[in-house]
Amino acid sequence: MNKKKSIGIFDSGIGGLTVLHSIISTLPHENTIYVGDTARVPYGTKSARMVTQYALEIGKFLSDQQVKALVVACNTASAVALPKLKGVFNIPVIDMIGPAARKAAHSSISGNIGIIGTEGTIRSGAYERSLKEINPDLSVVSSKCPLFVPLAEEGWVDNDIAHLTATCYLEPFIDSGIDTLILGCTHYPLFKETIRKVMGDHITLVDSGEEAACELKELLEEMGEKEEGGTIERRYFVTDTPERFLKLGQRFLGEEIDQVSHIDIP
Amino acid sequence: MNKKKSIGIFDSGIGGLTVLHSIISTLPHENTIYVGDTARVPYGTKSARMVTQYALEIGKFLSDQQVKALVVACNTASAVALPKLKGVFNIPVIDMIGPAARKAAHSSISGNIGIIGTEGTIRSGAYERSLKEINPDLSVVSSKCPLFVPLAEEGWVDNDIAHLTATCYLEPFIDSGIDTLILGCTHYPLFKETIRKVMGDHITLVDSGEEAACELKELLEEMGEKEEGGTIERRYFVTDTPERFLKLGQRFLGEEIDQVSHIDIP
Repeated sequence: MNKKKSIGIFDSGIGGLTVLHSIISTLPHENTIYVGDTARVPYGTKSARMVTQYALEIGKFLSDQQVKALVVACNTASAVALPKLKGVFNIPVIDMIGPAARKAAHSSISGNIGIIGTEGTIRSGAYERSLKEINPDLSVVSSKCPLFVPLAEEGWVDNDIAHLTATCYLEPFIDSGIDTLILGCTHYPLFKETIRKVMGDHITLVDSGEEAACELKELLEEMGEKEEGGTIERRYFVTDTPERFLKLGQRFLGEEIDQVSHIDIP
Repeated sequence: MNKKKSIGIFDSGIGGLTVLHSIISTLPHENTIYVGDTARVPYGTKSARMVTQYALEIGKFLSDQQVKALVVACNTASAVALPKLKGVFNIPVIDMIGPAARKAAHSSISGNIGIIGTEGTIRSGAYERSLKEINPDLSVVSSKCPLFVPLAEEGWVDNDIAHLTATCYLEPFIDSGIDTLILGCTHYPLFKETIRKVMGDHITLVDSGEEAACELKELLEEMGEKEEGGTIERRYFVTDTPERFLKLGQRFLGEEIDQVSHIDIP
């Protein structure tokens, strides 16, 4: 075991592995600890109260591992639990909403921005609030896409069913004048090609995990804690048994996961 | 509050309401207490260990309410947790697997039976074991249909997406010689028409909730505990906040749900 402090990353399950993928690409020399709350996945259809409780429990586990930053690699948890997480833990907390909203507000020329996410994320209005804080004149259209998560887990991201589902969910954005669409769920980057086919190439797709990884990099640089070399450790924990995570995780992470440990939380 | 003992029914969420619907049709004078474990839904993708723990916790809550019988209105929990539930609680336990398997074995003329269910139910092999115990010569084909649960909750049970998904999932049964198909998940009865369109009218569809309700009726008659009249009470408890259950429940139950209470489990 090396002596580097790790970055702690958590999600309700495997979706946050797309965020870890972006973090590994952007910060290749960091140790990482990933927690997937697979015993209680999904968060997207659950209440703010429940998701906040779960996020605090996992945040505590990662804080106990002495991580130097906490990445909430789940849009739903970011949308509903961020103030509590920031209030409780004495380490920097990176969420999914803020970085993606800043990128979208900066990229959009028309000032019309679309958001897709889980039921919990869309209901929270967190993206809309964040965008309006940056620029009150922005016009925002949002749509929940609950089928995208199980479709991604089934591996159906570019077949006829995925295309029909995307056509149905993206209908509110056609003729809405948006030029930027926030992929406000960590599963959604797997549908980038399908979404482009439905929406056209002129729409900028904002990947919340990529933007969070960029802001994490800036933060570590400011803190003087960005690693520049050395060996790396990747640790994975799940709250259910590891089989399903091992089986599906690789598709989301884009590289092999060789060992996953079970933890009981709380 | 009347003095009748209630029937306790539980599921991971709202799917078990199709079972409650069958119980209400078959046993209209019984008091019922329904628990939906909406804080931890779904069970279908989770491990046997986790689902068993959850089922025991909810079984304890219902047992503490002095129910006269416990209905495991969830195929996944029935498939993995039944022996533990029967061993722990001193009341009759009705599951989804046994009644549906008996009906299918009785109905099939060709001896070729199909099963569809969640990942957890299919992986457990519980239906296959139950069918082979009844008749070792039965030939069994099974297929997991993970998208059916979120499709049912989205209300997409007979549109193009549902039809394409059903065509994909039911492909293993075409030309397999089955004459009977077990709908081994409480969400699936909502797809009866779509499944008939794909499979044809000559296939007998076995609804696990309907069969469990019939066996519950026989059991209460044997016990001398079947109610024949009087006022009835329907109580509903969920482990997450009630909003989503209230909103979606009616479609699954087929009648209005006017009050749902939150409980913390464990």
